[in-house]
Amino acid sequence: MTTTTLHPGRDGAGVVKRTTLPGGLRVVTETMPTVRSVAVGMWVGIGSRDEDPEHTGATHFLEHLLFKGTPTRDAMEISASIEGIGGEINAFTAKEYTCYYARVLDEDLPIAVDVLADVVTSSLIDREDVESERGVILEEIAMHDDDPSDVVHEQFAVALYGDSPIGRPILGTADSINALGRDRIAEYYGRYYQPPLTVVSVAGNIRHEDVVELVARAYERAGALQGPATSAPPRTSGPGAETRSGVRVLDRPTEQANLVLGTTGMARTDERRFALGVLNAALGGGMSSRLFQEIREKRGLAYSAYSYTSAYADTGQFGIYVGCLPSKIDDVLKICRDEVARVVAEGLTEEEIVRGKGQMRGGLVLGLEDTGSRMSRIGKNELVYDELLSVDEVLARIEAVTAEEISAVAGDVFNRPLTLAVIGPYGDKDFSHAIA
Amino acid sequence: MTTTTLHPGRDGAGVVKRTTLPGGLRVVTETMPTVRSVAVGMWVGIGSRDEDPEHTGATHFLEHLLFKGTPTRDAMEISASIEGIGGEINAFTAKEYTCYYARVLDEDLPIAVDVLADVVTSSLIDREDVESERGVILEEIAMHDDDPSDVVHEQFAVALYGDSPIGRPILGTADSINALGRDRIAEYYGRYYQPPLTVVSVAGNIRHEDVVELVARAYERAGALQGPATSAPPRTSGPGAETRSGVRVLDRPTEQANLVLGTTGMARTDERRFALGVLNAALGGGMSSRLFQEIREKRGLAYSAYSYTSAYADTGQFGIYVGCLPSKIDDVLKICRDEVARVVAEGLTEEEIVRGKGQMRGGLVLGLEDTGSRMSRIGKNELVYDELLSVDEVLARIEAVTAEEISAVAGDVFNRPLTLAVIGPYGDKDFSHAIA
Repeated sequence: MTTTTLHPGRDGAGVVKRTTLPGGLRVVTETMPTVRSVAVGMWVGIGSRDEDPEHTGATHFLEHLLFKGTPTRDAMEISASIEGIGGEINAFTAKEYTCYYARVLDEDLPIAVDVLADVVTSSLIDREDVESERGVILEEIAMHDDDPSDVVHEQFAVALYGDSPIGRPILGTADSINALGRDRIAEYYGRYYQPPLTVVSVAGNIRHEDVVELVARAYERAGALQGPATSAPPRTSGPGAETRSGVRVLDRPTEQANLVLGTTGMARTDERRFALGVLNAALGGGMSSRLFQEIREKRGLAYSAYSYTSAYADTGQFGIYVGCLPSKIDDVLKICRDEVARVVAEGLTEEEIVRGKGQMRGGLVLGLEDTGSRMSRIGKNELVYDELLSVDEVLARIEAVTAEEISAVAGDVFNRPLTLAVIGPYGDKDFSHAIA
Repeated sequence: MTTTTLHPGRDGAGVVKRTTLPGGLRVVTETMPTVRSVAVGMWVGIGSRDEDPEHTGATHFLEHLLFKGTPTRDAMEISASIEGIGGEINAFTAKEYTCYYARVLDEDLPIAVDVLADVVTSSLIDREDVESERGVILEEIAMHDDDPSDVVHEQFAVALYGDSPIGRPILGTADSINALGRDRIAEYYGRYYQPPLTVVSVAGNIRHEDVVELVARAYERAGALQGPATSAPPRTSGPGAETRSGVRVLDRPTEQANLVLGTTGMARTDERRFALGVLNAALGGGMSSRLFQEIREKRGLAYSAYSYTSAYADTGQFGIYVGCLPSKIDDVLKICRDEVARVVAEGLTEEEIVRGKGQMRGGLVLGLEDTGSRMSRIGKNELVYDELLSVDEVLARIEAVTAEEISAVAGDVFNRPLTLAVIGPYGDKDFSHAIA
């Protein structure tokens, strides 16, 4: 058992420590002595992109099943044990990890650790539960299908990455969910939900040693402290992702058209991600950004208009989202293309760079006041990065970005082939000119 | 100028103070010395239910226009001044109030007060801006129309309150927005955006005296410290709201049906609201609630199933929301009606009461760790309640709720006529049996 201090705690940040237990389970904590609550996350380093075709949708299906029962708690006891003490318990599945979490008063830390460790290590994956939860997931898929702003982002990923695991929706499809049998899910659970792929992260009014002891005891009791060696399958987004260009149009009788126009971005560890962040802030990151000003403030063409970046192990996305009346889409697409071209040709102004940096800085600092976001930061960091950057280090890297770096990133990313996803009442309207 | 200490600050809560400036403007603050940020809200005690028919949609339209410009700042300067320092600025319109707010680092408090006071007191409401923002609001209405879970809640309010201001959507309709002229909006602004109807609330690492001085100076500079006497029009939800029963079905080709089944609840100051809160928690407030357990855990009939309460000056709502595949709706409605009937006949178990109280307690305490939620709590309190209940007082009132009070509330609320709103691919299917 080795314990390392990852951050000494100063400038508003708490002490961050990591202990690795004998079987490979990692426990990271951040101490926040001025709050009354504690957030506990159990992260498993496996996500929907790690599924082979026979397991499509298994990661998320599993997330549901873990709340259905263990040898010592049924579904009602799992939720009641946390809700009865005023806490919340939930989970989410991403493309590269799955997280089970709870937030409770600090004195209730032992209960939160106990319940989460129980569901993560000892799920029954009962046959009857699989059947009833299958219905719930089909409902969840139908719910997403009814939200055009969800659907358009899924369609964009499909258009960008094609039929590769990273391009597929996290929930799977109705067909893949109907095809998933109990044993296949249980086998997936047994293979990946093991100590080497698990990180427990805790932030709040706690002592690191107490957390380590609680986690070790809970895992020991479950006989889960030692498990088979395991790792996520190799992650590549497949040949062609960098050069694919395409248009996907879904004909739907919606009031608004929804569109995402974009391309591949940067992998999570790419050093240029800070420059891309400033660029994104200036182009579509807020109300003072170019796209918001042009599309909404000056022209009144949309209510929602923004750009975003997302990052994975080996690739990333840059996208512009706009929702507008169907008749406005040609104007909107022209503005998007013009603004992208302008930033490639001219870069950002000094004023925009200062503002973009200010925005990233503030978003980071203001976004880390609650226990949940700090728990998330250190947990995700431990899982997917090689190093834990302190908040101050991140701020320094943002500050160091130069105008030349931003222009270089704009030239690189925005000269890649563009991909467009559109949902709206367009029949077979041709949008290929929009990305030409 | 009178200053009152509303809460002395202990048990994790900060000192809360209120100062009333000569013209009637109230400034309330809560000191949180352990955080680095500050949240500033400017609340105006006027909402969509205060609109006469000629002003339908004016409150929300105005909220948009306030970000368009003042004599000293255009739209770009308003957003850039806050975003450039890493903060966020935004606003929302409710049925009984409108709130403009910003969150920034504590050292930037003066900028946040300055910008917010400027937009609240000195909006130009420029004719050209009205036209371009009309387009943005029509986009916002279209966006909501595309989200069936939004639409069903609006339809429920219409069914419950009929064609009265409180039943109408906050945004207005495309027709009402197209009919609203610039002068009518400006007149509404001049009438209501005055000191007696305004509360400035600030929470974070601040000193009360500094905030009062900053606010007074900004209002003085704008010549807005003294204004005409004003108050919100009388608020009554009209005859019949307590006894109305109805079904509203919207035929839409959605994947899921969305339904809200409910009735009128309790006014905001009703002493029985704490008992209704415990009842709501046990019936549909979380994963361990009766509705979630029956509909989702046992039967797998839905992904989202919950109940909620909302409260206004003179009335309130109690509603159950479920999204399910269209073929499941009869089963779901039967469970909803059965659970409501069962709670009326048998009340709650001792265990459910303990858990319901724990849930309310935890939700309150865990929900008040950030500056934004504390700013909201004290601002809203000052605007719509006669007294500021401290968190401890609220906790004591929750604790004091008895099984008898809960049963009495269940008997009262759930014996009122039921109202049902449904959206789904149902043609003219008859749902009147569902509320009979």
